[in-house]
Amino acid sequence: MSKPSIPQGTRDFGPEVVRKRQYIFNTIRSVFELYGFQPLETPAMENLETLMGKYGEEGDKLIFRILNNGLDNTGKHQQAREDFEKVLEGKNVKGITERALKYDLTIPFARYVAMNQGQLTFPFKRYQIQPVWRADRPQRGRYREFYQCDADVVGSKSLLNELELVNIYEEVFVKLGIADYELRINNRKILAALAELCGGADKMIDITIAIDKLDKIGIDKVKEELAQRGLNEEQITTIEKYLNITGNNREKLELIKTLIGHLETGSKGIEELEYVINNNQIQNQRSPIIIDFTLARGLNYYTGIIFEAKAPPAVKMGSIGGGGRYDDLTGLFGVPNMPGVGISFGVDRIYDVLEELKLFPEGVYTGTQVLFFNLGPAESITAFSAMQSLRNQGVRCELYHEQAKMDKQFKYAEKKNIGFVVIIGSQELLNNTAVVKNLKTGVQESMALANLSNKLFI
Amino acid sequence: MSKPSIPQGTRDFGPEVVRKRQYIFNTIRSVFELYGFQPLETPAMENLETLMGKYGEEGDKLIFRILNNGLDNTGKHQQAREDFEKVLEGKNVKGITERALKYDLTIPFARYVAMNQGQLTFPFKRYQIQPVWRADRPQRGRYREFYQCDADVVGSKSLLNELELVNIYEEVFVKLGIADYELRINNRKILAALAELCGGADKMIDITIAIDKLDKIGIDKVKEELAQRGLNEEQITTIEKYLNITGNNREKLELIKTLIGHLETGSKGIEELEYVINNNQIQNQRSPIIIDFTLARGLNYYTGIIFEAKAPPAVKMGSIGGGGRYDDLTGLFGVPNMPGVGISFGVDRIYDVLEELKLFPEGVYTGTQVLFFNLGPAESITAFSAMQSLRNQGVRCELYHEQAKMDKQFKYAEKKNIGFVVIIGSQELLNNTAVVKNLKTGVQESMALANLSNKLFI
Repeated sequence: MSKPSIPQGTRDFGPEVVRKRQYIFNTIRSVFELYGFQPLETPAMENLETLMGKYGEEGDKLIFRILNNGLDNTGKHQQAREDFEKVLEGKNVKGITERALKYDLTIPFARYVAMNQGQLTFPFKRYQIQPVWRADRPQRGRYREFYQCDADVVGSKSLLNELELVNIYEEVFVKLGIADYELRINNRKILAALAELCGGADKMIDITIAIDKLDKIGIDKVKEELAQRGLNEEQITTIEKYLNITGNNREKLELIKTLIGHLETGSKGIEELEYVINNNQIQNQRSPIIIDFTLARGLNYYTGIIFEAKAPPAVKMGSIGGGGRYDDLTGLFGVPNMPGVGISFGVDRIYDVLEELKLFPEGVYTGTQVLFFNLGPAESITAFSAMQSLRNQGVRCELYHEQAKMDKQFKYAEKKNIGFVVIIGSQELLNNTAVVKNLKTGVQESMALANLSNKLFI
Repeated sequence: MSKPSIPQGTRDFGPEVVRKRQYIFNTIRSVFELYGFQPLETPAMENLETLMGKYGEEGDKLIFRILNNGLDNTGKHQQAREDFEKVLEGKNVKGITERALKYDLTIPFARYVAMNQGQLTFPFKRYQIQPVWRADRPQRGRYREFYQCDADVVGSKSLLNELELVNIYEEVFVKLGIADYELRINNRKILAALAELCGGADKMIDITIAIDKLDKIGIDKVKEELAQRGLNEEQITTIEKYLNITGNNREKLELIKTLIGHLETGSKGIEELEYVINNNQIQNQRSPIIIDFTLARGLNYYTGIIFEAKAPPAVKMGSIGGGGRYDDLTGLFGVPNMPGVGISFGVDRIYDVLEELKLFPEGVYTGTQVLFFNLGPAESITAFSAMQSLRNQGVRCELYHEQAKMDKQFKYAEKKNIGFVVIIGSQELLNNTAVVKNLKTGVQESMALANLSNKLFI
């Protein structure tokens, strides 16, 4: 067969990478738990109808569908051909594909809440750390299989939740050593008020889409796009005025009030922002929250406060997290009035930030600490027994798998970055001793086997 | 839309179940690490050609294939129709389906080793804890998405590895409290010798398949099956003699020697069994290894020692783990001579055993420890600040999300099994105090806010 390979856009994670990723997941998980969030896991596969129509036309096309099994059973071929014609028309037919891989964690969460609402205690605070799949064109930093890492509170309209989520960002990033991240905040109500100011709520989507591109394409192109989307010069001038608001948070709030404070939605949006800024309980905050009216968070279901966490400016990696408030999580699944707010962490980008800034701690490396040499059948069994006592004391050990020259065994220890070797040769076997060598310092010492203990390897 | 549901044979895991499963995974992971095994993660999706032809005809049919995206693009329809005809004939065509969900962890591991052999240090000891997918008919205890939990050493023929794996089973099961599990052991070389004794190596598969069913169908049916598979009376008598070997390990070894000890493969197989039994380094072993010549481990690639771990007889759950030695992991991927040995843990069954025997420890529950009441806007902000100090001391806290009657907040704490509440009302706000109530004992106490500390909640 041809050379083995893996699908484009997917990755194998070797030992070191798995450990570093686990360090990130565990850090985030421990903070989520500290804040009373509870773990949830949903299957990789969902029924296709659960996912379809939830991610916009473009999103739907990126869902990985699973081919039904048993299509080759005799007797069903004509039906299958007819069904397949519909697939060619871009439809989804149960006869061909009933299931698909999940595209995000939010829709499966909504489906879970709708299915289990009777059993859950609300507000329900859940976190979920699982892979999702998207048939996107793979490119640097964009994968077809990647982890999402979300925390949401549903069943509560209280802004106390937003305060908590701000704290979670701070606590996770400080724990990871990313102290100079930026947390930007805006409110979709303010964007809605801006749309209202520009002649109607129906402009909201056009304005949001255009503003969302500001970072990438600059103000002139945004203005062009707005014109193409049918906004007139006066409206574009208003939007430019909005986008040009600068200053510290207090100054920005003053300016936005003069622009949209007279509109009900606008005033509500401003009030919510003020609540979060004024009641923020982070002690000794290193990176204060920044109000950023250019923040739009794309074309999603957000309706209130929105967040974006950005990597430290030094690494130029952009967004490492985001989230916001929504009015209705589960309406699509027949359960109305389920407001909530959530955030997510961009684990792949966070990984790159930690790598670039050399922020992974020493303790992430949890490979073998001690290699026992194998110098013969009897020697190896004595070494095995000594090793088991060390393992019982929590020391991660290996015994070299076969009798071999010392050189070869030293080389193995070196390649695997093992710090200590324990040598039991024929002489040591006779005397019930062992030689312990620290490979970093080169210091070696002979001792009674009974004196081998975990204290030697710290 | 219709009521939301999840695909047959898949499961959502709510908070309590996730925590219990994590407890099992973490226990196994910590032992794997203690024994020098390193984590590996491979993608959910593999190229279809990596998987096809590796699991036998029946297995291949149970692979979940992923439909290619973009089939509805104009211009490709005729090709797609032709390709689909081949799918209806039971073939796999890249034009329709290039990728599939992994069916086990072994083949992706083999693919990984073949792809990365130049970078790896051998013997390579890896563990892998990930979900796999099979389009099996769902039934009690059999799922379409389930976790496997494997440890393998490749690049070594040494029986020291087998000794280690025996120790890993013991250590994991003892840590989990499943002290009276059974570890059964056999050697495929002994089965090969039995086939030789019955007239030829070509009988090996027939004999193995039949023996493998002994537990389920009994000796008479096994004999029937052997006859159907073309074995004559004399051969069946030999096999029956083999299956009837009883006694303790020493007695069994004596009897097997008289039966097949004169054959080279047989003698080698017996010698290997004796090595493992005689050099077993488990201290104070509660369940000694049991030689079981009826153990066959199905129609797989095993060629040497094979293992099966069984649940305590009291719970009647059968196998909770298994594994064995193989000669050639990566030959199918163009890299020959890669012998190895591995074991796996049946996590779903282990979960059921722990549940039935009530072996999950108290500490598995890591939900919220303290609920702060919300008795008004100012009270809630003071409570929030006090709560943050507790969180900084590692106490898992929540603030009730909105101002509500005390009753409602007590009820929330009760439903979520939260042990303590902290009440800050208008009076406490004035006096800088808080009331701490232990919901288990009913004892409550008023104290200065500054005296709230993690020591109160242990």
